[in-house]
Amino acid sequence: MTESTTACPVLPTRGPAHPLGLAQVSVTGGFWGVRQAVNATATLSHCESWMERLGWLANFDRVADGTTSPDRPGWPFSDSEVYKLLEALAWEAGRTGDPEAEWAIKRLTARVGQAQDPDGYLNTCFGHGGRPPRYSDLEMGHELYNTGHLLQAAVARLRTSGEDELVRIARRAADHVCRTFGADGLPKICGHPEIEVGLAEFGRALGEDRYVEQARLFLDRRGHGTLRDIPLGRAYFQDDIPIRQADVWRGHAVRALYLTAAAVDVAVERGDDDLLRAVERQWERVVERRTAITGGMGSRHQDEGFGEDWELPPDRAFCETCAGVASIMVSWRLLLATGDVRYADLIERTLYNVVATSPSPDGRAFFYANPLHQRAPGNPADENEVSPRAEAGVRAAWFDVSCCPTNVARTLAGLGAYLATTDDDGLQIHQYAPCTIRTELPDGRQVAADVETDYPESGTIRVRIAADEPAPWALSLRVPAWAAGARLIEDGRERPVGPGPVTVRRAFRSGEVITLDLPMEPRFTRPDPRIDAVRGCVAVERGPEVLCVESHDLPRPDALDALVIDPLTPPRADSGGALVRGRLPAHADRPWPYAPATAPTQPGEPGEPGESSRSGGSGEPGESGESGGWFDVPLRPYHSWARRGPSSMRVWLPAPPTS
Amino acid sequence: MTESTTACPVLPTRGPAHPLGLAQVSVTGGFWGVRQAVNATATLSHCESWMERLGWLANFDRVADGTTSPDRPGWPFSDSEVYKLLEALAWEAGRTGDPEAEWAIKRLTARVGQAQDPDGYLNTCFGHGGRPPRYSDLEMGHELYNTGHLLQAAVARLRTSGEDELVRIARRAADHVCRTFGADGLPKICGHPEIEVGLAEFGRALGEDRYVEQARLFLDRRGHGTLRDIPLGRAYFQDDIPIRQADVWRGHAVRALYLTAAAVDVAVERGDDDLLRAVERQWERVVERRTAITGGMGSRHQDEGFGEDWELPPDRAFCETCAGVASIMVSWRLLLATGDVRYADLIERTLYNVVATSPSPDGRAFFYANPLHQRAPGNPADENEVSPRAEAGVRAAWFDVSCCPTNVARTLAGLGAYLATTDDDGLQIHQYAPCTIRTELPDGRQVAADVETDYPESGTIRVRIAADEPAPWALSLRVPAWAAGARLIEDGRERPVGPGPVTVRRAFRSGEVITLDLPMEPRFTRPDPRIDAVRGCVAVERGPEVLCVESHDLPRPDALDALVIDPLTPPRADSGGALVRGRLPAHADRPWPYAPATAPTQPGEPGEPGESSRSGGSGEPGESGESGGWFDVPLRPYHSWARRGPSSMRVWLPAPPTS
Repeated sequence: MTESTTACPVLPTRGPAHPLGLAQVSVTGGFWGVRQAVNATATLSHCESWMERLGWLANFDRVADGTTSPDRPGWPFSDSEVYKLLEALAWEAGRTGDPEAEWAIKRLTARVGQAQDPDGYLNTCFGHGGRPPRYSDLEMGHELYNTGHLLQAAVARLRTSGEDELVRIARRAADHVCRTFGADGLPKICGHPEIEVGLAEFGRALGEDRYVEQARLFLDRRGHGTLRDIPLGRAYFQDDIPIRQADVWRGHAVRALYLTAAAVDVAVERGDDDLLRAVERQWERVVERRTAITGGMGSRHQDEGFGEDWELPPDRAFCETCAGVASIMVSWRLLLATGDVRYADLIERTLYNVVATSPSPDGRAFFYANPLHQRAPGNPADENEVSPRAEAGVRAAWFDVSCCPTNVARTLAGLGAYLATTDDDGLQIHQYAPCTIRTELPDGRQVAADVETDYPESGTIRVRIAADEPAPWALSLRVPAWAAGARLIEDGRERPVGPGPVTVRRAFRSGEVITLDLPMEPRFTRPDPRIDAVRGCVAVERGPEVLCVESHDLPRPDALDALVIDPLTPPRADSGGALVRGRLPAHADRPWPYAPATAPTQPGEPGEPGESSRSGGSGEPGESGESGGWFDVPLRPYHSWARRGPSSMRVWLPAPPTS
Repeated sequence: MTESTTACPVLPTRGPAHPLGLAQVSVTGGFWGVRQAVNATATLSHCESWMERLGWLANFDRVADGTTSPDRPGWPFSDSEVYKLLEALAWEAGRTGDPEAEWAIKRLTARVGQAQDPDGYLNTCFGHGGRPPRYSDLEMGHELYNTGHLLQAAVARLRTSGEDELVRIARRAADHVCRTFGADGLPKICGHPEIEVGLAEFGRALGEDRYVEQARLFLDRRGHGTLRDIPLGRAYFQDDIPIRQADVWRGHAVRALYLTAAAVDVAVERGDDDLLRAVERQWERVVERRTAITGGMGSRHQDEGFGEDWELPPDRAFCETCAGVASIMVSWRLLLATGDVRYADLIERTLYNVVATSPSPDGRAFFYANPLHQRAPGNPADENEVSPRAEAGVRAAWFDVSCCPTNVARTLAGLGAYLATTDDDGLQIHQYAPCTIRTELPDGRQVAADVETDYPESGTIRVRIAADEPAPWALSLRVPAWAAGARLIEDGRERPVGPGPVTVRRAFRSGEVITLDLPMEPRFTRPDPRIDAVRGCVAVERGPEVLCVESHDLPRPDALDALVIDPLTPPRADSGGALVRGRLPAHADRPWPYAPATAPTQPGEPGEPGESSRSGGSGEPGESGESGGWFDVPLRPYHSWARRGPSSMRVWLPAPPTS
């Protein structure tokens, strides 16, 4: 690894928080270390072999051979999967120096490169024999989207290894894009944003501002009806409203989020505070009104899109894995641009409950959609088959639209770069994983620390200082917003610390330990009453993890339809999960599920049809009555659901008044 | 009109209930009379002119001229719109003898007929120059679907006017289908069921059993993976499970329902009680678990399909107008096959709350989807533009996929045929509209009655006997399942009558009146607790109408997000609608909408985030507190929503415990 640059995916030229690269932060184990290892040893080769098997790699050979034809396998965006895999491999090679990853990069780079046209154009779906002409379907063709991912891969390579053939390919492709779509070129944009974020970072990585400028041009062209209208409307690809004027993210979630990531980059590079503030307002509105408790974004299957405010159905939540990755891209950029740890809060939630949910423990199967309620168990997946469906209720080895596996892979491989930042006076640790941090501040103060924790198994995070530095510096730790009751322990003294950053500033000696203790008791969480779809329900969270109930742990297959929870008995810890008190009221078979509201049996409790009996009038939930007795319902982390085979599952649990 | 046959869409050769035709039942005004008149004077010509403007009619000319080409306008199913319009025109001409309708039939028939190939094949999308070959896309090509609608149009013509050119065209098309897909032909089916129900009825109408047999063959071929798999899965077109083995309707709702209608026809014609019972069980499960309170079916936008059991989101309910029409087709056939009035209950609900909801008062704009909750008002529709979107929140003049307007038109024109039946001993009136009924029983007893009512404005239905008949006969009236407290008044004597059929059997004299009085006070309705999406909510119904709240009637644009209802104060009648007590609690702006469940302030009432204050502890909803005082919230019939311009709207109203 070249140590002269910071090996990280986002490196702004200004901003209050400076990212640390993979040479400065190294994950040494724990929750994420295991996942990085599985990613390295299984997922990367899994992705390459599927792309080979399906002909997505051979598509590059066919361009080189001049044997392209109408029957090309794969969607128009399949090239991008190769580039996302290259990005993942580059972070992996940078992180560990793994020669396998290095060989794979060279192997794939050679195949990609041979398909590049002399003018820099590089695409296996358009522009060659038997294929539609270049840029003939900007709405749905994904040509510039593919190029954006090529540029992100080249950034990873450049920052971990230096300029190589992949970087040169990317440079030619970027130059082609600037010539074709520059200020004097085609005044068009791509239906799927991504070129913008790729160009902006490639420009940063090379110090070539014209790439950043091209990104700005694409951004400013968007929102004026530049693309053709489609049945889903121009909001689908964010061409309905200019980004500076929009109040909220809408349409296809991944599109909206990739675009927004680029907007932060451009705002930072151009000192455009209005644009930055617009994005912050959009983030605030989406986080308040359009985000699942998992951090998942995108409520609709139809367009893989955001719905309206408060439209957050657990059963039909799409919460695409890629939208989780993209949300982290946005929040990380905002954190770097503002230093505000609220963005790290959302990143943590999304990492544990979206990104970690997608891959199976063996790294060879993935969730594409991440609903919060699975009504009917899926069918067991065939590991040798491509899943045509993104929402099967089981992890699939590969998808027809297989954007998620490589997105998970590149995120996990580069995860070290998202854990901590520095500013002029010290170190900020944002995410808690066992890791080593070695860096220095701009004035040369040595900042070195080892994080020791089995978080989120426990909430104890020990930061062990690893270098004597006589000059004081500031160590900031993020107390997550959920962590009411957190404590900081230093020199044997313990003090309560509120959510937000907690900072210790002084001279540190090697070996001393600052301990953050986060409360890991499972807790009930209530939704805003405006979220109609989960009215009257509670979720159970533990630390950063959202928990869920699976049918595996219930006595009857349809029990999840009937289960109600006692909200007055707090959840109890149970080996990394929780136990709550629940019961299974019997339900009458009624021919019609809507019935007159009967006179209430208790003030404030209108009659409900369907429940054939109810517990007596004393209001004590301990009474079992005829409607089923109370029993302990186990909950497990949502990210581990469906590991024990297909199941039904729910995060939000009905918790009716028990009086 | 030829009086020798019964002019109705479904005429089984056996079964306990005999349909009456348009010559026997004539709607004379009222709720449906107005809609029939608007349909006749506006909608029929509106549909024809849009099909002309968009080239869907010219597609037939192009086949005749040999000028077909790859750029054919319209979807592959656009031919079916012409046939559904022909069916509507045939019922209209049969109902009123309107010469305009008669001319339109001849005009359209001539145009259609010229496009028929010598072997009977008739389709403008496939099988001619520049077009894909015949039956080259059975999954999505809709060729046999189109033919099915042609056959239904021919049935309408045959039963209202007799054999004419349209009937001859249909016969040639049906013969072509039997030759091509018969027992010795291609063992295939169409991705969109409809040919089955068309063939079965055409066979009945002509007394040609081989058409019924072809319908049976298509039915029995289905469910065995006969069609290619698609990303949505074979359940989308019901090719996943044979119909006799299925427990429930699933996949695309209109497809499932058209198929089921044919299954009832085949079961009746073949005396196949197992098949009939299978369909009844499917109906029961769907009505219990997959039907909106409006009668709407199809919870998902993505596939216009049924979701899982209990998946009934009001905001994303698709409830396609055509699925409402198709549900009525199924329930009407089941009513004829069993005599059970529960089917008429569902028909009533669907007529008032789905079919009546679609058209605007002027009959020139339509809803395609019928959600029960509109979060953001739609944009005003341009009456000169085709809506690319089926879910705009406003009625549109025409749609890119414009199946609904002609489906409404044919249903309204033929509505008289769904109001009443006879059996061997008398008359059953199923739906209440002002109408004249003139028929005779098989043994010659004269049955004549005039129904006088302004139902559902009022609940008083007067059946005035219109012929002296010395032999006793039985008059049955349906007391809807919702009508607890109904009364029958006869000879000045009044008695309570329970839901279900109520029968008066005796000799009737002309002029005497039997009065059914249905309770029309608005009422609260609670959902089964397993319907997660509306937990803690009430709906308000009045008679057969579901009511709704529109933003027009609330003080703030976002008030519908905050509105809560007092469930302890029953709704009060208010000029065809209702008033309920509601308030608008203030909501705190929170950065994250999920918050710890705080200690309850009252037993049984866990804390909820987002509501910044709550009324005091006395449990009296009359206290306004800081969170907004109680006020009267007006509700209007759901079918009339969005008539006053774009609005947000909801049927299900949060009604939290008010203690």
